[in-house]
Amino acid sequence: MSDLSFTHLDPLGRARMVDVTPKEPTHRAVANREVKKGDVLAVARVAGIQAAKRTSDLIPLCHPLLVGAVHVNFEIGDDFIAVEANVDTVDRTGVEMEALHACATAALTIYDMCKSADRGMVIGELALWEKTGGRSGVYRRDMSGGDANASDVSDTVTNVVES
Amino acid sequence: MSDLSFTHLDPLGRARMVDVTPKEPTHRAVANREVKKGDVLAVARVAGIQAAKRTSDLIPLCHPLLVGAVHVNFEIGDDFIAVEANVDTVDRTGVEMEALHACATAALTIYDMCKSADRGMVIGELALWEKTGGRSGVYRRDMSGGDANASDVSDTVTNVVES
Amino acid sequence: MSDLSFTHLDPLGRARMVDVTPKEPTHRAVANREVKKGDVLAVARVAGIQAAKRTSDLIPLCHPLLVGAVHVNFEIGDDFIAVEANVDTVDRTGVEMEALHACATAALTIYDMCKSADRGMVIGELALWEKTGGRSGVYRRDMSGGDANASDVSDTVTNVVES
Amino acid sequence: MSDLSFTHLDPLGRARMVDVTPKEPTHRAVANREVKKGDVLAVARVAGIQAAKRTSDLIPLCHPLLVGAVHVNFEIGDDFIAVEANVDTVDRTGVEMEALHACATAALTIYDMCKSADRGMVIGELALWEKTGGRSGVYRRDMSGGDANASDVSDTVTNVVES
Amino acid sequence: MSDLSFTHLDPLGRARMVDVTPKEPTHRAVANREVKKGDVLAVARVAGIQAAKRTSDLIPLCHPLLVGAVHVNFEIGDDFIAVEANVDTVDRTGVEMEALHACATAALTIYDMCKSADRGMVIGELALWEKTGGRSGVYRRDMSGGDANASDVSDTVTNVVES
Amino acid sequence: MSDLSFTHLDPLGRARMVDVTPKEPTHRAVANREVKKGDVLAVARVAGIQAAKRTSDLIPLCHPLLVGAVHVNFEIGDDFIAVEANVDTVDRTGVEMEALHACATAALTIYDMCKSADRGMVIGELALWEKTGGRSGVYRRDMSGGDANASDVSDTVTNVVES
Repeated sequence: MSDLSFTHLDPLGRARMVDVTPKEPTHRAVANREVKKGDVLAVARVAGIQAAKRTSDLIPLCHPLLVGAVHVNFEIGDDFIAVEANVDTVDRTGVEMEALHACATAALTIYDMCKSADRGMVIGELALWEKTGGRSGVYRRDMSGGDANASDVSDTVTNVVES
Repeated sequence: MSDLSFTHLDPLGRARMVDVTPKEPTHRAVANREVKKGDVLAVARVAGIQAAKRTSDLIPLCHPLLVGAVHVNFEIGDDFIAVEANVDTVDRTGVEMEALHACATAALTIYDMCKSADRGMVIGELALWEKTGGRSGVYRRDMSGGDANASDVSDTVTNVVES
Repeated sequence: MSDLSFTHLDPLGRARMVDVTPKEPTHRAVANREVKKGDVLAVARVAGIQAAKRTSDLIPLCHPLLVGAVHVNFEIGDDFIAVEANVDTVDRTGVEMEALHACATAALTIYDMCKSADRGMVIGELALWEKTGGRSGVYRRDMSGGDANASDVSDTVTNVVES
Repeated sequence: MSDLSFTHLDPLGRARMVDVTPKEPTHRAVANREVKKGDVLAVARVAGIQAAKRTSDLIPLCHPLLVGAVHVNFEIGDDFIAVEANVDTVDRTGVEMEALHACATAALTIYDMCKSADRGMVIGELALWEKTGGRSGVYRRDMSGGDANASDVSDTVTNVVES
Repeated sequence: MSDLSFTHLDPLGRARMVDVTPKEPTHRAVANREVKKGDVLAVARVAGIQAAKRTSDLIPLCHPLLVGAVHVNFEIGDDFIAVEANVDTVDRTGVEMEALHACATAALTIYDMCKSADRGMVIGELALWEKTGGRSGVYRRDMSGGDANASDVSDTVTNVVES
Repeated sequence: MSDLSFTHLDPLGRARMVDVTPKEPTHRAVANREVKKGDVLAVARVAGIQAAKRTSDLIPLCHPLLVGAVHVNFEIGDDFIAVEANVDTVDRTGVEMEALHACATAALTIYDMCKSADRGMVIGELALWEKTGGRSGVYRRDMSGGDANASDVSDTVTNVVES
């Protein structure tokens, strides 16, 4: 992590909130090996879980509901981090907005923690991947090649932070 | 609006929060003429403005600051709505996270209000477009063709809801 | 809208949050034709719906519950705007506080957006109009003339912004 | 307090949040001697102070600012409680929305705590009483008889809960 | 209250939020007779009740649930105030986090209101006292001497502010 | 981690929010080696930082201010975890309430994540350790043995989760 200044991580990789200091943005670093060190993904995961719970606070016409299980996971590629969120509920309505909100907030959190190193990041394609258990039947996004990932989660969405 | 059921709009196009009822998702409708009717974009604009103010509540390591002016605007294409957010502040730190959060929340709000008509929507490319007035100088995203849109706003981001 | 400066609306009537600039308050403008243009009522409607969802956050001894449908409507008179909120729930408790909170917040939002044009506005009579489905039976406010408006909503309240 | 059931107060007059139980609404009780006992006004005062701090969260186009001093006071009449809120700030913008929001929320809190005894209460006239220190000069509501109460607070508003 | 400056209480013992002014911290005052005067405990009780409702907002992996009854009570000793919180729910999960959060927030509120008089206060032992009705059976903290206080509340916790 | 069921961690030690399932509480596990694995401390750190920012939302008479840097650190002993929070600000008031709130919330978060393994945990002594830069001069808690830890942070508090 020699030439990168992740100002939200201390030298041991622990999250901190710091006063902004002059800094030199460097080259592309999203999803590099450095990011795996430290708390970046743990912080983004927490942010996503909390966002799922507060979705109806932020999305005006979204119904309040009691979120059940929330999982936020990451896949780290050479120049991207893919974010996947699964949300379950026993409530009467779907939870795709909760999953989308979790995913978007986790991605924004990654962006926030890495922006001092790379301001050219893009938060790409956010979409519903799979929805089960609702009144309108199972929804599964059409993919070239098939539906390898037919899990039993309620609503799953994915997002990508690219650089 | 005959064959579309925007359950978040009443027959006069006014926003409402409704109990979820059985409905038939139909074909692509994002950004069609129907969406311009009613409150959809007004609701999304409010959601974006409020999200800008609450950014540090949702993004864990983001500093609290007092947001100044916030503008959220839309460009409606044949099969997309582009969302642009500008945020100003007199504070010591940048406001790109506030602009990104406003943009993402406005796009999620559009998605929420249109999802009963089209579940295949994608929230695409969210990126910082321009940043001025910070310590690290002016940032302007590199574009094929030039920088037509050299405004004097602080931080501008764009987002797209496609279908 | 020549002689009025609604600083929360841009020239096309879209909501924006602006830095406060010197301005000349003019004459009475609440509920004039100008107010119907633009986003004022749409913003107030969103504010009311969101307030209904957050009632137990603001009113200390109010129980949390999952709000179902929320409708906020307006009647525009010559020198007033009447605000009516209906809230439904499937929960075990009543929702009159949610309806009252929605109504008060929508009225305050109108006040906020119009105060640059008229600082003499008054937010008048806020009262429960009708309550159905609770354990204590149907409540209907005693009115001179009769109960024309015996709808089947749960809790309905009204409020008035006068000038 | 024999024939009144203030379900939000325990027998010693301490606030509590209780499960809703069957109850018999009785006659008018707002602002009677009973209400002075116990925590009602203390709870309403806290609710008003907290609401002042969260105004920009609830009123969509209201700017965030750092509230300074907040005072919420009550005058108890035979069949009404008058609520007065004063808010100070060192910020660049006015704080009348914060004072109005404090007042409305304190009144709603009184309503909530007394509604089991009297469902016919009305929350009346909410208006700006006095505003000082802003760019647009001193504002003082025109009153029949004079300006007895020319205090030096920034923004003062009043509200009334009548029964 | 001659030699103590409780800056959060006015001369009549009513809560207020005040601008910070130079002040002389004096000697130990927590839980003295002065504290009983005025709104201190009423404000702390409200803070605890509201905290119970917002627990899942603050504790990241805590599930949202609909809190039922909440009681926060105090025992005032010579140099301490003991805080006890009971929380009920009809939800499927336990509410000990809600009770702990209520207790901690009530204690912090007492600290905040008394810190101008005594900066050496300590918030001591916060622990679960009793838990009933959950799947894991009744839990009761082992005490020297027996279980005098076998109430039927769900979850009870205690906390102490010492000086 | 064989005989312990940290239900908030998946087998790889990543945080998740899960539906509550029947579980057997076992023996003391706070601060054991297992806890160091996984996200427990990272989640608690995020919770503490976010709580610092939202202090005035939870503590009724606490002034809103713009928190600067926040650090939350842990010391892991044989049967305890000590929590230390430092908060800086450029604002005019002290930030000890923000530091205390961060510390308490981080400790409650640890409790929440470990309570399935040990319900007998106690959250102990929460106190102000050091305060600098305020109007009332430097405060440093009197300790047996000296002031080894005379750092230059503004407000530092400590807390302990014992088992």
